Amino acid sequence: MNCTVLGCGRWGSFLASFHSRRGRVVLWGRSGSRSFETLRESRKNDYLTLPEAVVLEEDLGRALAASETVIISISAQQLRGFAARLNGHPIAGKTFILCMKGLEEETGKRLTQVMRESLTQPVGLAVWVGPGHVQDFLAGVPNCMVVDSDDRALTRRIVEQFQSELLRLYIGTDLIGTEIGAAAKNVMGIAAGLLDGKGLSSLKGALMARGAREIARLIRAMGGNELSAYGLCHLGDYEATLFSPHSHNRRFGEAVARGEQYTLLAEGVPTTQALVRLGEAHGVELPICETVYAILYRGVPAEEAFQRLFFRSAKEEFYV
Amino acid sequence: MNCTVLGCGRWGSFLASFHSRRGRVVLWGRSGSRSFETLRESRKNDYLTLPEAVVLEEDLGRALAASETVIISISAQQLRGFAARLNGHPIAGKTFILCMKGLEEETGKRLTQVMRESLTQPVGLAVWVGPGHVQDFLAGVPNCMVVDSDDRALTRRIVEQFQSELLRLYIGTDLIGTEIGAAAKNVMGIAAGLLDGKGLSSLKGALMARGAREIARLIRAMGGNELSAYGLCHLGDYEATLFSPHSHNRRFGEAVARGEQYTLLAEGVPTTQALVRLGEAHGVELPICETVYAILYRGVPAEEAFQRLFFRSAKEEFYV
Repeated sequence: MNCTVLGCGRWGSFLASFHSRRGRVVLWGRSGSRSFETLRESRKNDYLTLPEAVVLEEDLGRALAASETVIISISAQQLRGFAARLNGHPIAGKTFILCMKGLEEETGKRLTQVMRESLTQPVGLAVWVGPGHVQDFLAGVPNCMVVDSDDRALTRRIVEQFQSELLRLYIGTDLIGTEIGAAAKNVMGIAAGLLDGKGLSSLKGALMARGAREIARLIRAMGGNELSAYGLCHLGDYEATLFSPHSHNRRFGEAVARGEQYTLLAEGVPTTQALVRLGEAHGVELPICETVYAILYRGVPAEEAFQRLFFRSAKEEFYV
Repeated sequence: MNCTVLGCGRWGSFLASFHSRRGRVVLWGRSGSRSFETLRESRKNDYLTLPEAVVLEEDLGRALAASETVIISISAQQLRGFAARLNGHPIAGKTFILCMKGLEEETGKRLTQVMRESLTQPVGLAVWVGPGHVQDFLAGVPNCMVVDSDDRALTRRIVEQFQSELLRLYIGTDLIGTEIGAAAKNVMGIAAGLLDGKGLSSLKGALMARGAREIARLIRAMGGNELSAYGLCHLGDYEATLFSPHSHNRRFGEAVARGEQYTLLAEGVPTTQALVRLGEAHGVELPICETVYAILYRGVPAEEAFQRLFFRSAKEEFYV
């Protein structure tokens, strides 16, 4: 089955390449962007060489017209503007799959909410998240990921279409939880890096238990299934996010804790702000997100913030 | 307040030393055992030097008579025999705290069950588990642990007695879940080592999500609170157990996957058998425990067992 991928970064270029074994794939990128121009010149990037069956396309209309199934993999904060561009093309009835993790910084909105608010035509809409890594997949190491939407039949169809030995897809049944969990794991990644940077790595165990717990409570308050925080979208991504030397968010937190400069902005930073907003809106205490927020946005020294976080008075473990 | 510690291994000797700042501590060990004789000769072991306030004692009756609060830290499979020895002394009304993780191999019983069945006198009984590490504590790195019992007032009293800046104690409210979770994390540690040994470390994310999930289901079936699997006793101990190069259970799994010899027996081995028994008794599928069991007890090659485990057909993430 044909498929179009919008966004030609690491993940977009990998999905296009991988899926091209099964059908024609159109890979769209922004003309003039470094990712796209690199691929256009050499059909290569730092990770892979595009198979011949992948058609590079700079015209958004032609890319959209080529397939009924469209994967989007761009920066989360650019999604609203990008969705507005999609309205200029006939997309009614197509299926859009967001392979992205994040929340809108200014509003705390989930990415499918941003899409629904922005699109003027009826489309199928799903997310695809979890602990898969392009570098591992390219090395032949399999992993499990999760697809979710508010339409069970659509979720199932996407899973069947993209299921493979390498990418084991699970069927999610809680879109709210899956989106919040996927975005929030980046904040826990920053928290893990802050601990690493202060020589407190062994507290990452407690961070995992308490971090997943507060996200579970937020998901429940938002009407989702609290177990999603313990699923592939969130806890399942902790290995990569809290422990990997390659995790952007973890490295960012580590640099902050050590007072070093870090040039790449971590996606978890805007997500921290979005989650603090959501916690306030839904009346949920989020001690870890609020601690990361205090450090990143208010300049509270990490040690002082951790003292407050970990050394509170004795209480029941699941007090809320 | 005085306290007696029975068992002078790494954890027992640390707790005795640490608590001796607050009161007189009697540390009992088996006369002739290497741990005890090493301490008797030099008042030192590989980790610490005993403070003067710690009294070494080889007579079990005198050790028991010295305090109303008694910590036990011995090998889980020896607990039933040891409890029988306690019956020979007047212990009615004392509080026993088990700083141990495991299940009885032949019966699948929890350690407080083993104690209750064996003791002939009424005592208070609690467990103290979670992600604390002696080496970290000695280096001044704090951590969070959890105390649990079936008597809320007793749990609270123990937490207040032993609470400190270094060992942050939480109040557990689900003895079944806390004991099962604490024991089961060692099995996930072996599974993590098996993945590491096969070059599949990035699957440890999925292992965390799916592993905690199956233990949650078992705890629920046994009448406990499924959230305990996501608490300090289980998930909170994953950092140390699934990622640390020092974890016995992880290293054991890694050696098995590589076909190497490993002389130290990991506590997770008998626990695997106990959990498989419990799963059968309570009608709960435990795919990861059963996979580890198949590899360790039935000689199924790890690769084949993992193929079966991870590459099952698409399904809903929280199907049960």
